[in-house]
Amino acid sequence: MKKKQRQHDPCLITFEGIDGCGKTTQAMLAFRFLSGKGMKVKLLREPGSTRISEQIRDILLNRKNSMSDITELLLYEAARSEIVSREIAPLLASGYIILCDRFYDSTTAYQGYGRKLDIKMVRALHKVATGNIAPDLTLLFDLDLKTAFSRRTQQLDRLESQSKAFFNRVRRGFLEIARKERRRVKVVDAARPVKVIFADVSRILTKKLKIDESISRSN
Amino acid sequence: MKKKQRQHDPCLITFEGIDGCGKTTQAMLAFRFLSGKGMKVKLLREPGSTRISEQIRDILLNRKNSMSDITELLLYEAARSEIVSREIAPLLASGYIILCDRFYDSTTAYQGYGRKLDIKMVRALHKVATGNIAPDLTLLFDLDLKTAFSRRTQQLDRLESQSKAFFNRVRRGFLEIARKERRRVKVVDAARPVKVIFADVSRILTKKLKIDESISRSN
Repeated sequence: MKKKQRQHDPCLITFEGIDGCGKTTQAMLAFRFLSGKGMKVKLLREPGSTRISEQIRDILLNRKNSMSDITELLLYEAARSEIVSREIAPLLASGYIILCDRFYDSTTAYQGYGRKLDIKMVRALHKVATGNIAPDLTLLFDLDLKTAFSRRTQQLDRLESQSKAFFNRVRRGFLEIARKERRRVKVVDAARPVKVIFADVSRILTKKLKIDESISRSN
Repeated sequence: MKKKQRQHDPCLITFEGIDGCGKTTQAMLAFRFLSGKGMKVKLLREPGSTRISEQIRDILLNRKNSMSDITELLLYEAARSEIVSREIAPLLASGYIILCDRFYDSTTAYQGYGRKLDIKMVRALHKVATGNIAPDLTLLFDLDLKTAFSRRTQQLDRLESQSKAFFNRVRRGFLEIARKERRRVKVVDAARPVKVIFADVSRILTKKLKIDESISRSN
Protein backbone atom coordinates (compact mmCIF):
# COMPACT_ATOMS: atom_id res chain seq x y z
CA MET A 1 0.00 0.00 0.00
CA LYS A 2 3.01 2.26 0.21
CA LYS A 3 2.84 2.84 -3.52
CA LYS A 4 -0.71 4.22 -3.28
CA GLN A 5 0.30 7.81 -3.98
CA ARG A 6 2.25 6.99 -7.10
CA GLN A 7 0.31 7.29 -10.27
CA HIS A 8 2.20 4.39 -11.87
CA ASP A 9 5.30 2.25 -11.69
CA PRO A 10 8.13 2.90 -14.13
CA CYS A 11 7.41 0.97 -17.24
CA LEU A 12 9.00 0.19 -20.64
CA ILE A 13 6.46 -0.06 -23.44
CA THR A 14 7.67 -0.93 -26.92
CA PHE A 15 5.99 -0.36 -30.29
CA GLU A 16 6.81 -2.99 -32.89
CA GLY A 17 5.95 -4.08 -36.40
CA ILE A 18 7.13 -3.98 -40.00
CA ASP A 19 7.89 -0.68 -41.73
CA GLY A 20 4.67 1.08 -42.70
CA CYS A 21 2.58 -0.52 -39.94
CA GLY A 22 1.95 2.85 -38.30
CA LYS A 23 3.75 2.19 -35.00
CA THR A 24 5.53 5.56 -35.01
CA THR A 25 2.24 7.43 -35.35
CA GLN A 26 0.70 5.31 -32.58
CA ALA A 27 3.72 5.86 -30.32
CA MET A 28 3.35 9.62 -30.78
CA LEU A 29 -0.40 9.48 -30.06
CA ALA A 30 0.30 7.38 -26.96
CA PHE A 31 2.90 9.90 -25.83
CA ARG A 32 0.38 12.71 -26.15
CA PHE A 33 -2.31 10.64 -24.42
CA LEU A 34 -0.14 9.81 -21.40
CA SER A 35 1.44 13.27 -21.16
CA GLY A 36 -2.07 14.69 -21.21
CA LYS A 37 -2.79 12.69 -18.07
CA GLY A 38 0.20 14.31 -16.37
CA MET A 39 2.28 11.16 -16.45
CA LYS A 40 6.07 11.23 -16.59
CA VAL A 41 6.52 9.81 -20.04
CA LYS A 42 9.36 9.81 -22.55
CA LEU A 43 9.33 8.79 -26.21
CA LEU A 44 12.46 7.15 -27.66
CA ARG A 45 13.28 5.54 -30.96
CA GLU A 46 15.55 2.69 -31.89
CA PRO A 47 18.13 2.67 -33.28
CA GLY A 48 18.89 6.19 -32.11
CA SER A 49 17.99 8.61 -29.30
CA THR A 50 21.58 9.03 -28.09
CA ARG A 51 24.58 10.68 -29.75
CA ILE A 52 26.35 7.36 -30.35
CA SER A 53 23.21 5.47 -31.34
CA GLU A 54 22.36 8.08 -33.95
CA GLN A 55 25.86 7.70 -35.41
CA ILE A 56 25.30 3.94 -35.53
CA ARG A 57 21.85 4.48 -37.06
CA ASP A 58 23.47 6.46 -39.89
CA ILE A 59 25.74 3.51 -40.70
CA LEU A 60 22.86 1.03 -40.53
CA LEU A 61 20.33 2.88 -42.65
CA ASN A 62 22.61 4.50 -45.24
CA ARG A 63 21.61 2.98 -48.57
CA LYS A 64 25.18 3.27 -49.84
CA ASN A 65 26.38 0.88 -47.14
CA SER A 66 26.36 -2.88 -47.40
CA MET A 67 27.47 -5.15 -44.58
CA SER A 68 27.35 -8.73 -43.40
CA ASP A 69 24.27 -9.90 -41.48
CA ILE A 70 26.31 -10.41 -38.31
CA THR A 71 27.77 -6.90 -38.54
CA GLU A 72 24.26 -5.52 -38.90
CA LEU A 73 23.12 -7.51 -35.86
CA LEU A 74 26.05 -6.33 -33.74
CA LEU A 75 25.50 -2.70 -34.73
CA TYR A 76 21.82 -2.85 -33.72
CA GLU A 77 22.86 -4.34 -30.36
CA ALA A 78 25.53 -1.66 -29.89
CA ALA A 79 22.97 1.08 -30.51
CA ARG A 80 20.62 -0.70 -28.09
CA SER A 81 23.25 -1.03 -25.39
CA GLU A 82 23.80 2.71 -25.56
CA ILE A 83 20.14 3.70 -25.39
CA VAL A 84 19.61 1.28 -22.49
CA SER A 85 22.53 2.56 -20.41
CA ARG A 86 22.16 6.27 -21.23
CA GLU A 87 18.39 6.65 -21.44
CA ILE A 88 16.21 3.70 -20.54
CA ALA A 89 17.88 2.56 -17.30
CA PRO A 90 18.17 6.09 -15.79
CA LEU A 91 14.63 7.02 -16.89
CA LEU A 92 13.17 3.87 -15.33
CA ALA A 93 15.11 4.65 -12.16
CA SER A 94 13.50 8.10 -12.17
CA GLY A 95 10.02 6.64 -12.45
CA TYR A 96 9.31 7.33 -16.11
CA ILE A 97 7.03 5.51 -18.47
CA ILE A 98 9.11 4.97 -21.59
CA LEU A 99 7.57 4.49 -25.00
CA CYS A 100 10.13 3.03 -27.39
CA ASP A 101 9.61 2.96 -31.15
CA ARG A 102 11.22 -0.46 -31.83
CA PHE A 103 13.28 -2.48 -29.36
CA TYR A 104 14.82 -5.94 -29.33
CA ASP A 105 11.84 -7.73 -30.87
CA SER A 106 12.66 -5.84 -34.08
CA THR A 107 16.14 -7.36 -34.05
CA THR A 108 14.74 -10.85 -33.42
CA ALA A 109 12.27 -10.35 -36.29
CA TYR A 110 14.51 -8.56 -38.83
CA GLN A 111 17.91 -10.09 -38.15
CA GLY A 112 16.78 -13.41 -36.65
CA TYR A 113 13.77 -14.35 -38.80
CA GLY A 114 14.41 -11.95 -41.72
CA ARG A 115 18.15 -12.58 -42.19
CA LYS A 116 17.78 -16.16 -40.94
CA LEU A 117 20.37 -15.81 -38.18
CA ASP A 118 20.31 -18.21 -35.25
CA ILE A 119 17.49 -17.01 -32.97
CA LYS A 120 19.18 -18.29 -29.83
CA MET A 121 22.36 -16.34 -30.64
CA VAL A 122 20.30 -13.23 -31.40
CA ARG A 123 18.53 -13.51 -28.04
CA ALA A 124 21.86 -14.00 -26.25
CA LEU A 125 23.01 -10.70 -27.75
CA HIS A 126 19.86 -8.94 -26.51
CA LYS A 127 20.92 -10.05 -23.04
CA VAL A 128 24.42 -8.60 -23.51
CA ALA A 129 23.02 -5.30 -24.78
CA THR A 130 20.17 -4.84 -22.29
CA GLY A 131 21.32 -6.57 -19.11
CA ASN A 132 18.16 -7.29 -17.17
CA ILE A 133 15.94 -4.72 -18.82
CA ALA A 134 13.00 -6.10 -20.81
CA PRO A 135 9.79 -4.48 -22.06
CA ASP A 136 6.86 -4.64 -19.64
CA LEU A 137 4.44 -4.36 -22.53
CA THR A 138 4.86 -4.62 -26.29
CA LEU A 139 2.32 -3.50 -28.88
CA LEU A 140 2.75 -5.34 -32.15
CA PHE A 141 1.09 -3.56 -35.06
CA ASP A 142 0.38 -6.34 -37.50
CA LEU A 143 -0.24 -5.48 -41.12
CA ASP A 144 -0.27 -7.31 -44.45
CA LEU A 145 2.64 -6.49 -46.73
CA LYS A 146 0.49 -5.11 -49.54
CA THR A 147 -0.95 -2.38 -47.33
CA ALA A 148 2.41 -1.70 -45.65
CA PHE A 149 4.17 -1.31 -49.01
CA SER A 150 1.41 0.93 -50.38
CA ARG A 151 2.02 3.39 -47.53
CA ARG A 152 5.60 4.00 -48.56
CA THR A 153 6.16 7.50 -49.79
CA GLN A 154 9.68 8.65 -48.95
CA GLN A 155 12.86 7.14 -50.36
CA LEU A 156 13.48 3.82 -48.69
CA ASP A 157 16.43 3.30 -46.32
CA ARG A 158 18.77 0.29 -46.49
CA LEU A 159 16.54 -1.97 -44.40
CA GLU A 160 13.30 -0.84 -46.03
CA SER A 161 14.77 -1.72 -49.43
CA GLN A 162 14.77 -5.45 -48.70
CA SER A 163 12.65 -7.91 -50.69
CA LYS A 164 9.03 -8.88 -50.12
CA ALA A 165 10.12 -12.38 -49.07
CA PHE A 166 12.31 -10.79 -46.39
CA PHE A 167 9.41 -8.73 -45.00
CA ASN A 168 7.19 -11.78 -45.06
CA ARG A 169 9.67 -13.59 -42.82
CA VAL A 170 9.90 -10.52 -40.57
CA ARG A 171 6.12 -10.30 -40.21
CA ARG A 172 5.85 -14.02 -39.44
CA GLY A 173 8.73 -13.59 -36.98
CA PHE A 174 6.89 -10.86 -35.09
CA LEU A 175 3.75 -13.01 -34.90
CA GLU A 176 5.84 -15.94 -33.65
CA ILE A 177 7.29 -13.77 -30.87
CA ALA A 178 3.75 -12.67 -29.93
CA ARG A 179 2.57 -16.29 -29.90
CA LYS A 180 5.41 -17.27 -27.53
CA GLU A 181 4.96 -14.31 -25.20
CA ARG A 182 1.23 -13.68 -25.08
CA ARG A 183 1.33 -11.90 -21.74
CA ARG A 184 3.83 -9.30 -22.82
CA VAL A 185 3.05 -8.86 -26.52
CA LYS A 186 -0.37 -7.59 -27.61
CA VAL A 187 -1.17 -7.85 -31.32
CA VAL A 188 -3.06 -4.90 -32.76
CA ASP A 189 -4.70 -5.06 -36.20
CA ALA A 190 -2.97 -2.20 -38.01
CA ALA A 191 -5.00 -2.36 -41.22
CA ARG A 192 -7.68 -0.06 -39.76
CA PRO A 193 -7.84 3.76 -39.58
CA VAL A 194 -5.43 5.48 -37.19
CA LYS A 195 -8.15 6.53 -34.73
CA VAL A 196 -9.66 3.07 -34.55
CA ILE A 197 -6.23 1.55 -33.92
CA PHE A 198 -5.53 4.12 -31.23
CA ALA A 199 -8.79 3.26 -29.47
CA ASP A 200 -7.28 -0.22 -28.99
CA VAL A 201 -3.91 1.20 -27.96
CA SER A 202 -5.34 3.56 -25.35
CA ARG A 203 -7.51 0.77 -23.95
CA ILE A 204 -4.45 -1.50 -23.55
CA LEU A 205 -2.39 1.32 -22.00
CA THR A 206 -5.20 2.31 -19.64
CA LYS A 207 -5.43 -1.27 -18.41
CA LYS A 208 -1.68 -1.80 -18.13
CA LEU A 209 -0.98 1.48 -16.36
CA LYS A 210 -4.18 1.23 -14.28
CA ILE A 211 -5.16 4.74 -15.35
CA ASP A 212 -8.23 5.91 -13.52
CA GLU A 213 -11.10 6.05 -16.03
CA SER A 214 -12.50 9.19 -14.41
CA ILE A 215 -9.19 10.98 -15.01
CA SER A 216 -9.28 9.53 -18.49
CA ARG A 217 -12.70 11.09 -19.19
CA SER A 218 -11.73 14.49 -17.82
CA ASN A 219 -9.10 14.90 -20.54
CA MET B 1 53.71 -34.63 -49.33
CA LYS B 2 51.10 -33.26 -51.74
CA LYS B 3 51.62 -29.81 -50.31
CA LYS B 4 55.28 -29.80 -51.29
CA GLN B 5 54.91 -27.35 -54.14
CA ARG B 6 52.98 -24.80 -52.13
CA GLN B 7 55.10 -22.16 -50.57
CA HIS B 8 52.79 -21.87 -47.56
CA ASP B 9 49.30 -22.51 -46.27
CA PRO B 10 46.94 -19.60 -45.82
CA CYS B 11 47.57 -18.15 -42.43
CA LEU B 12 46.26 -15.42 -40.13
CA ILE B 13 48.99 -13.74 -38.10
CA THR B 14 48.02 -11.05 -35.60
CA PHE B 15 50.14 -8.30 -34.05
CA GLU B 16 49.09 -7.35 -30.54
CA GLY B 17 50.11 -5.17 -27.62
CA ILE B 18 49.36 -1.88 -25.88
CA ASP B 19 49.50 1.42 -27.74
CA GLY B 20 53.08 2.49 -28.32
CA CYS B 21 54.49 -1.07 -28.27
CA GLY B 22 55.60 -0.81 -31.91
CA LYS B 23 53.34 -3.52 -33.35
CA THR B 24 52.30 -1.41 -36.34
CA THR B 25 55.93 -0.83 -37.33
CA GLN B 26 56.69 -4.53 -36.91
CA ALA B 27 53.61 -5.52 -38.95
CA MET B 28 54.78 -3.25 -41.77
CA LEU B 29 58.31 -4.69 -41.63
CA ALA B 30 56.85 -8.21 -41.65
CA PHE B 31 54.72 -7.32 -44.65
CA ARG B 32 57.78 -6.09 -46.55
CA PHE B 33 59.79 -9.15 -45.47
CA LEU B 34 57.18 -11.65 -46.66
CA SER B 35 56.33 -9.72 -49.84
CA GLY B 36 60.02 -9.67 -50.62
CA LYS B 37 59.96 -13.45 -50.61
CA GLY B 38 57.19 -13.41 -53.22
CA MET B 39 54.55 -14.56 -50.77
CA LYS B 40 50.89 -13.65 -51.17
CA VAL B 41 50.54 -11.41 -48.15
CA LYS B 42 48.05 -8.76 -47.10
CA LEU B 43 48.28 -6.26 -44.25
CA LEU B 44 45.07 -5.28 -42.45
CA ARG B 45 44.31 -3.20 -39.40
CA GLU B 46 41.62 -3.45 -36.77
CA PRO B 47 39.26 -1.78 -36.26
CA GLY B 48 39.13 -0.76 -39.92
CA SER B 49 40.17 -2.03 -43.36
CA THR B 50 36.62 -2.07 -44.77
CA ARG B 51 34.22 0.77 -45.57
CA ILE B 52 31.89 -0.11 -42.70
CA SER B 53 34.67 -0.91 -40.22
CA GLU B 54 36.33 2.45 -40.87
CA GLN B 55 32.99 4.18 -40.13
CA ILE B 56 32.79 2.21 -36.88
CA ARG B 57 36.42 3.06 -36.13
CA ASP B 58 35.55 6.76 -36.41
CA ILE B 59 32.83 6.36 -33.76
CA LEU B 60 35.13 4.35 -31.47
CA LEU B 61 38.21 6.55 -31.58
CA ASN B 62 36.59 10.01 -31.74
CA ARG B 63 37.63 11.79 -28.57
CA LYS B 64 34.36 13.70 -28.51
CA ASN B 65 32.41 10.47 -28.13
CA SER B 66 31.69 8.73 -24.86
CA MET B 67 29.85 5.44 -24.63
CA SER B 68 29.12 2.55 -22.29
CA ASP B 69 31.67 -0.27 -22.04
CA ILE B 70 29.22 -2.75 -23.57
CA THR B 71 28.54 -0.44 -26.52
CA GLU B 72 32.28 -0.13 -27.07
CA LEU B 73 32.65 -3.92 -26.96
CA LEU B 74 29.79 -4.49 -29.42
CA LEU B 75 31.18 -1.87 -31.83
CA TYR B 76 34.61 -3.54 -31.86
CA GLU B 77 32.94 -6.88 -32.56
CA ALA B 78 30.82 -5.34 -35.34
CA ALA B 79 33.94 -3.92 -36.99
CA ARG B 80 35.60 -7.33 -36.59
CA SER B 81 32.68 -9.22 -38.07
CA GLU B 82 32.90 -7.01 -41.15
CA ILE B 83 36.65 -7.39 -41.65
CA VAL B 84 36.35 -11.15 -41.18
CA SER B 85 33.55 -11.63 -43.69
CA ARG B 86 34.75 -9.10 -46.29
CA GLU B 87 38.51 -9.49 -46.08
CA ILE B 88 39.94 -12.21 -43.88
CA ALA B 89 37.72 -15.15 -44.90
CA PRO B 90 37.98 -14.52 -48.67
CA LEU B 91 41.74 -13.84 -48.46
CA LEU B 92 42.35 -17.06 -46.54
CA ALA B 93 40.27 -18.91 -49.13
CA SER B 94 42.53 -17.42 -51.83
CA GLY B 95 45.66 -18.66 -50.07
CA TYR B 96 46.88 -15.39 -48.58
CA ILE B 97 48.98 -14.84 -45.50
CA ILE B 98 47.20 -12.11 -43.57
CA LEU B 99 49.00 -9.84 -41.14
CA CYS B 100 46.48 -8.11 -38.91
CA ASP B 101 47.39 -5.13 -36.73
CA ARG B 102 45.21 -6.01 -33.71
CA PHE B 103 42.51 -8.69 -33.61
CA TYR B 104 40.32 -10.20 -30.93
CA ASP B 105 43.02 -10.46 -28.27
CA SER B 106 42.96 -6.65 -28.18
CA THR B 107 39.27 -6.76 -27.30
CA THR B 108 39.87 -9.38 -24.61
CA ALA B 109 42.68 -7.24 -23.18
CA TYR B 110 41.14 -3.75 -23.52
CA GLN B 111 37.44 -4.41 -22.99
CA GLY B 112 37.71 -7.60 -20.94
CA TYR B 113 40.69 -6.92 -18.66
CA GLY B 114 40.88 -3.13 -19.12
CA ARG B 115 37.17 -2.32 -18.76
CA LYS B 116 36.66 -5.29 -16.43
CA LEU B 117 33.91 -6.87 -18.50
CA ASP B 118 33.15 -10.56 -18.11
CA ILE B 119 35.89 -12.40 -20.05
CA LYS B 120 33.63 -15.33 -20.89
CA MET B 121 31.04 -13.00 -22.41
CA VAL B 122 33.76 -11.17 -24.34
CA ARG B 123 35.04 -14.46 -25.77
CA ALA B 124 31.50 -15.53 -26.69
CA LEU B 125 31.21 -12.34 -28.74
CA HIS B 126 34.50 -13.09 -30.54
CA LYS B 127 32.87 -16.32 -31.62
CA VAL B 128 29.79 -14.47 -32.95
CA ALA B 129 31.98 -11.99 -34.85
CA THR B 130 34.56 -14.39 -36.28
CA GLY B 131 32.74 -17.69 -36.70
CA ASN B 132 35.44 -20.33 -36.82
CA ILE B 133 38.31 -18.06 -37.79
CA ALA B 134 41.12 -17.73 -35.24
CA PRO B 135 44.70 -16.50 -35.55
CA ASP B 136 47.26 -19.19 -36.41
CA LEU B 137 49.98 -17.12 -34.80
CA THR B 138 49.94 -14.06 -32.57
CA LEU B 139 52.90 -11.85 -31.81
CA LEU B 140 52.50 -10.00 -28.55
CA PHE B 141 54.79 -7.00 -28.25
CA ASP B 142 55.19 -6.56 -24.54
CA LEU B 143 56.36 -3.22 -23.21
CA ASP B 144 56.39 -1.43 -19.86
CA LEU B 145 53.99 1.49 -19.62
CA LYS B 146 56.66 4.10 -19.01
CA THR B 147 58.37 3.39 -22.32
CA ALA B 148 55.06 3.03 -24.15
CA PHE B 149 53.79 6.38 -22.85
CA SER B 150 57.09 8.13 -23.65
CA ARG B 151 56.66 7.16 -27.33
CA ARG B 152 53.41 9.08 -27.64
CA THR B 153 53.73 12.04 -29.96
CA GLN B 154 50.43 12.64 -31.75
CA GLN B 155 47.18 13.67 -30.10
CA LEU B 156 45.72 10.67 -28.32
CA ASP B 157 42.49 9.04 -29.49
CA ARG B 158 39.63 8.09 -27.16
CA LEU B 159 41.11 4.74 -26.18
CA GLU B 160 44.67 6.01 -25.87
CA SER B 161 43.42 8.67 -23.45
CA GLN B 162 42.59 6.11 -20.74
CA SER B 163 44.38 6.05 -17.40
CA LYS B 164 47.63 4.35 -16.49
CA ALA B 165 45.76 1.87 -14.28
CA PHE B 166 43.66 0.93 -17.30
CA PHE B 167 46.74 0.26 -19.44
CA ASN B 168 48.29 -1.74 -16.63
CA ARG B 169 45.27 -4.02 -16.63
CA VAL B 170 45.43 -4.25 -20.43
CA ARG B 171 49.10 -5.21 -20.39
CA ARG B 172 48.53 -7.83 -17.71
CA GLY B 173 45.55 -9.07 -19.71
CA PHE B 174 47.66 -9.58 -22.81
CA LEU B 175 50.26 -11.50 -20.79
CA GLU B 176 47.51 -13.63 -19.27
CA ILE B 177 46.23 -14.51 -22.76
CA ALA B 178 49.79 -15.46 -23.78
CA ARG B 179 50.18 -17.61 -20.67
CA LYS B 180 46.97 -19.50 -21.46
CA GLU B 181 47.75 -20.00 -25.15
CA ARG B 182 51.48 -20.53 -25.31
CA ARG B 183 51.38 -22.36 -28.62
CA ARG B 184 49.59 -19.58 -30.47
CA VAL B 185 50.87 -16.44 -28.73
CA LYS B 186 54.58 -15.57 -28.80
CA VAL B 187 55.70 -12.79 -26.48
CA VAL B 188 58.31 -10.44 -27.94
CA ASP B 189 60.25 -8.01 -25.75
CA ALA B 190 59.34 -4.67 -27.33
CA ALA B 191 61.65 -2.51 -25.21
CA ARG B 192 64.55 -3.06 -27.62
CA PRO B 193 65.46 -1.25 -30.88
CA VAL B 194 63.19 -1.87 -33.89
CA LYS B 195 65.79 -3.92 -35.79
CA VAL B 196 66.53 -6.16 -32.83
CA ILE B 197 62.83 -6.79 -32.31
CA PHE B 198 62.39 -7.54 -35.99
CA ALA B 199 65.16 -10.12 -35.87
CA ASP B 200 62.93 -12.02 -33.42
CA VAL B 201 59.82 -11.44 -35.52
CA SER B 202 61.42 -12.67 -38.76
CA ARG B 203 62.79 -15.73 -36.97
CA ILE B 204 59.32 -16.61 -35.63
CA LEU B 205 57.70 -16.02 -39.03
CA THR B 206 60.38 -18.04 -40.84
CA LYS B 207 59.75 -20.96 -38.53
CA LYS B 208 55.95 -20.72 -38.65
CA LEU B 209 55.73 -20.32 -42.41
CA LYS B 210 58.54 -22.82 -43.01
CA ILE B 211 60.33 -20.32 -45.22
CA ASP B 212 63.31 -21.92 -46.87
CA GLU B 213 66.43 -20.41 -45.32
CA SER B 214 68.22 -20.43 -48.69
CA ILE B 215 65.44 -18.27 -50.17
CA SER B 216 65.68 -16.17 -47.08
CA ARG B 217 69.38 -15.55 -47.62
CA SER B 218 68.97 -14.73 -51.30
CA ASN B 219 66.91 -11.68 -50.38
